[in-house]
Amino acid sequence: MSYNAIVLKQYPEALIDESTFETRRFESKALQDGEYRVQVSHLSLDPAMRGWVSPDPSSYIPPVQPGEIMRSLGFGVVTESLNPDYPVGTQVTGMTGWTEQIVAGEGELSVVPAQVNAELALSTLGMPGLTAYLGYHDILQAKQRQQKSQQTIVVTGAAGAVGSVVVQMAVADGLKVIALAGSEDKVRWLKEDLGADTVINYKTDNVSEALTAASPDGIDLFFENTGGEAQHTVIERINPHGKVAVCGLIADYHQAEASPAPSWINLIKRRATIEGFVITDHFHRSAELANGVMHYLEQGKIQNRVHVLDGLEAAKAGVNMLYSGDNTGKLIVKL
Amino acid sequence: MSYNAIVLKQYPEALIDESTFETRRFESKALQDGEYRVQVSHLSLDPAMRGWVSPDPSSYIPPVQPGEIMRSLGFGVVTESLNPDYPVGTQVTGMTGWTEQIVAGEGELSVVPAQVNAELALSTLGMPGLTAYLGYHDILQAKQRQQKSQQTIVVTGAAGAVGSVVVQMAVADGLKVIALAGSEDKVRWLKEDLGADTVINYKTDNVSEALTAASPDGIDLFFENTGGEAQHTVIERINPHGKVAVCGLIADYHQAEASPAPSWINLIKRRATIEGFVITDHFHRSAELANGVMHYLEQGKIQNRVHVLDGLEAAKAGVNMLYSGDNTGKLIVKL
Repeated sequence: MSYNAIVLKQYPEALIDESTFETRRFESKALQDGEYRVQVSHLSLDPAMRGWVSPDPSSYIPPVQPGEIMRSLGFGVVTESLNPDYPVGTQVTGMTGWTEQIVAGEGELSVVPAQVNAELALSTLGMPGLTAYLGYHDILQAKQRQQKSQQTIVVTGAAGAVGSVVVQMAVADGLKVIALAGSEDKVRWLKEDLGADTVINYKTDNVSEALTAASPDGIDLFFENTGGEAQHTVIERINPHGKVAVCGLIADYHQAEASPAPSWINLIKRRATIEGFVITDHFHRSAELANGVMHYLEQGKIQNRVHVLDGLEAAKAGVNMLYSGDNTGKLIVKL
Repeated sequence: MSYNAIVLKQYPEALIDESTFETRRFESKALQDGEYRVQVSHLSLDPAMRGWVSPDPSSYIPPVQPGEIMRSLGFGVVTESLNPDYPVGTQVTGMTGWTEQIVAGEGELSVVPAQVNAELALSTLGMPGLTAYLGYHDILQAKQRQQKSQQTIVVTGAAGAVGSVVVQMAVADGLKVIALAGSEDKVRWLKEDLGADTVINYKTDNVSEALTAASPDGIDLFFENTGGEAQHTVIERINPHGKVAVCGLIADYHQAEASPAPSWINLIKRRATIEGFVITDHFHRSAELANGVMHYLEQGKIQNRVHVLDGLEAAKAGVNMLYSGDNTGKLIVKL
């Protein structure tokens, strides 16, 4: 028995291209005691992947090495098992990699309850949702602050898998929400379906003017997913004790030189804080974070929007859609 | 009875100059019940003053208005009193302004114990010392972190009134201390007298190379007083969960355009935080902070270096010495 998987061929210099990955055929190996075999049915494409194929050893997670199967979150079903905790038919999720099949051991993958489907497990209840919740609740402490006074939050990449969950939690909690996205379709979705107070199209609007007009009382919180001009206007307009959670800088990931950020002068004047975070540091809290998201989901406060690509091969070029903004919703590859 | 005081004439555009301030003669007024008269003997010149004469209403403290006496910390002795808590002969400190005499009420000035002299009250036990302690202990949590693992701290403006206290607390606590200053005399003081591990002369050394060479294990903590190149190298080399306390950006205070700061990309990769702070937010904790500093002072771990200018008029041009780095130690005007 054999299966396909995609390995890293060489690190890309800028965007991922045809020379970055190659598909190889692997032989299935027999299970050892405690192991189980998973037929992977869905892969998650996430902005962080560009960082995983950058040879920067100082990053939060070691880079994938050339020749290794590309790291990726995935979802699948157990098809053969020598582990009683993972019987045949169990749904699982975790770092499967870009492969049709994986043999895993105790604790390597998490069990997904039968009522949660692959799309939900990889989006709102997966890494993007947990990232959104962690940044919104723990880093920004948005809900706690909102209970004391009306908070204005700016969310970039607001139509993305993480950003859209942040927007919806903030709308549900009654914050004033200013969302940035890059297409008219996304703008419409954020405004009409998700209920953001102001939505700015960063490709066609004057970001600085629009942000200024939308925040007459200044800006308290900033959930940053993209990088770019908004950063500068937000820091100019940040309120005393304002807080920035830096989740992603998608616009910078494939540039050799990252764009300069705003001077720290307003951080002093407004006693503001900028904090970078990554969800992998908090995986031990996954259950708690998922419960937090579930609270909003159960009340019908979070819509799940997925963009499904077809077949393992689609993963290779699919990642770039996250940087061009061509996806509408959480990008998932269905095998 | 009359006295001299210096008022703001007009906001400076860049550096403070001869058109910024003017000396005026005021008539002493009679005391009301609860008031006391203070003969001011010493004024403190602090980098924050440039911000106090900038017409930016969004700053942490409202700007001084033209025609008002220049805001300043000072020290003096009560010479006449209708308040039993401030008997004649009591030493006091607080926001006296640039004046020879002030009439104050309950709580406006703090009593200074007789064993603390003016120089100590305005430096290590005054705003600079409390600022240093707050940034080092509360914002950076340097001592707590050091108890878990060896921490490398970078301090800019290290020979200044704030920086030199930070350096000495860090040396006392056993951190690896990298200090930056702008003259050979300061470098010598920091290295030979205060015991910093590495001292970099930012005017003559290659800051980036020197910082890199001095931090083979990366940088955990950064106490930023100045702005400039060190910022970029520190953020490049910041360790996971590193922390930056932004206390001052003295190099930027008289520039119309503040210098850009490093990209936030490494904040994500290293889950690092940048936090701006000002001591005035924490004045209600002055006693607690002063106790913290006193702990180091009593053990002989902090030297106090003051640079004394003579006479009220010296205040006007004296502030600029803080930006050119011409002072050696806490800058104080003796009336």
